[in-house]
Amino acid sequence: MLIIGERINSTRPQVREAIRARNSSFIAKEAHEQLKSGAEFIDINCAVTSGDEPEDMEWAVSVIQGEANSAGICIDSPSHLAIERALKIYKGKGQVFINSITAEDERIKHILPLASRYGTKLIALAMDGSGMPDSAEGRLEMTKKILEKVKRVGFNPEDIYIDPLIRPISTEPAQAKEFLHSIPMIKSLGVKTACGLSNVSFGLPSRSLINAVFLSMAYQAGLDAAILDPLDKHVMSAVRAAKALLSEDDYCVEYIKAYRNGKLV
Amino acid sequence: MLIIGERINSTRPQVREAIRARNSSFIAKEAHEQLKSGAEFIDINCAVTSGDEPEDMEWAVSVIQGEANSAGICIDSPSHLAIERALKIYKGKGQVFINSITAEDERIKHILPLASRYGTKLIALAMDGSGMPDSAEGRLEMTKKILEKVKRVGFNPEDIYIDPLIRPISTEPAQAKEFLHSIPMIKSLGVKTACGLSNVSFGLPSRSLINAVFLSMAYQAGLDAAILDPLDKHVMSAVRAAKALLSEDDYCVEYIKAYRNGKLV
Repeated sequence: MLIIGERINSTRPQVREAIRARNSSFIAKEAHEQLKSGAEFIDINCAVTSGDEPEDMEWAVSVIQGEANSAGICIDSPSHLAIERALKIYKGKGQVFINSITAEDERIKHILPLASRYGTKLIALAMDGSGMPDSAEGRLEMTKKILEKVKRVGFNPEDIYIDPLIRPISTEPAQAKEFLHSIPMIKSLGVKTACGLSNVSFGLPSRSLINAVFLSMAYQAGLDAAILDPLDKHVMSAVRAAKALLSEDDYCVEYIKAYRNGKLV
Repeated sequence: MLIIGERINSTRPQVREAIRARNSSFIAKEAHEQLKSGAEFIDINCAVTSGDEPEDMEWAVSVIQGEANSAGICIDSPSHLAIERALKIYKGKGQVFINSITAEDERIKHILPLASRYGTKLIALAMDGSGMPDSAEGRLEMTKKILEKVKRVGFNPEDIYIDPLIRPISTEPAQAKEFLHSIPMIKSLGVKTACGLSNVSFGLPSRSLINAVFLSMAYQAGLDAAILDPLDKHVMSAVRAAKALLSEDDYCVEYIKAYRNGKLV
């Protein structure tokens, strides 16, 4: 499973301020710490600064690739203009996600050509203008809708990561189960799956515990990528244990190394 | 998922000594603490005392039902004589497991009639005289072999809990994955599944972490019962989070209660 670090997100006041003030050491440190904790991709969201989003995005990407040339990035923006600026400036050696499209024509029309031209992976939310599906079957139907549009332009389905969209179990108790059921159904269509983790535990105490257990379950169900806080020791311990359990860390070499480095709960 | 507390096991020196000395307060306390921590069944193993196993078993069952009349028990013995003594003395209001049979004729011949007569649940290890299967398919074949013999005497398959047998990932990296794959395959035959949890982490550091993540995965895969240490806060926190996530704890009422009582990590 690919780990995408979520911390450079302008909905966090500190990040918003750092972007506004062009505080490159803050942004570089956030990138560095996430990579050190096990992230392979750095999500970059500059959407809610008061500044010019494409300009902010270009700056943030340049800071991050200056800090870690091998880091993959995940360009998290509603604006195809900001996405294009990020793609143009990124010269790093990692891979790139665009985050995200939905089944809506307007976003697909603008973003898909960029994903094709730059050879990126693409996160697609299993929703359209009418909202989010409630059932696993609804998530599958939404995936088919997206896939049809994506295939029409010859984009490789293996580079599509469908996000089945998790909702808080505190208010919608059946949604985690529907999400988990949907993963193998969606993957049977030849695409991959991704999710933003933390929403599942919204409104509950011990959120890290819920997040860690849910991620363990989703990993077992086949989830291919997760957007999360890699500085959450509880969650990253679960990732490391899950890799060992799912035969992605032969003879637990990485797990034991993490233990020795004090990285496990 | 049913939680079976594993602590009253004569392989533990303290328990062995308590059985030998007829220390009923020690055994009662072990039962009480496990029930308080969330176990619904108490496993009782008197197999490696130096005394008379049927006699020891009868004593231990009487102590436990004296302590908690509503507790289910899990009679863990290689001896059908000890199992029969336990069944005769147990007057509690909980349900009963017999732990365990294998595909071997000798054990089935002696234990199945007892399970039928007393209406117990029955744990069946997915193995025979030739040893344990390596693959998920091998575990399925072993289940079919057991099921054929069990059906012949009219025992209800829904009361059979197949244990696919987990082995340490430290020495056999692919075994956890095969175990997890086997759960839905085995359940498709109309039986249930169970496992002894802790073996998976043998030889590794932070065993509770591996156990908790593996149990989360197995729960998601459909595991129906687990034999574990309910005093392991890490593992029981995962059980509570898993119940909330799998819609077995509507609106997370039990989860929030456990948090308030300081029971979550």
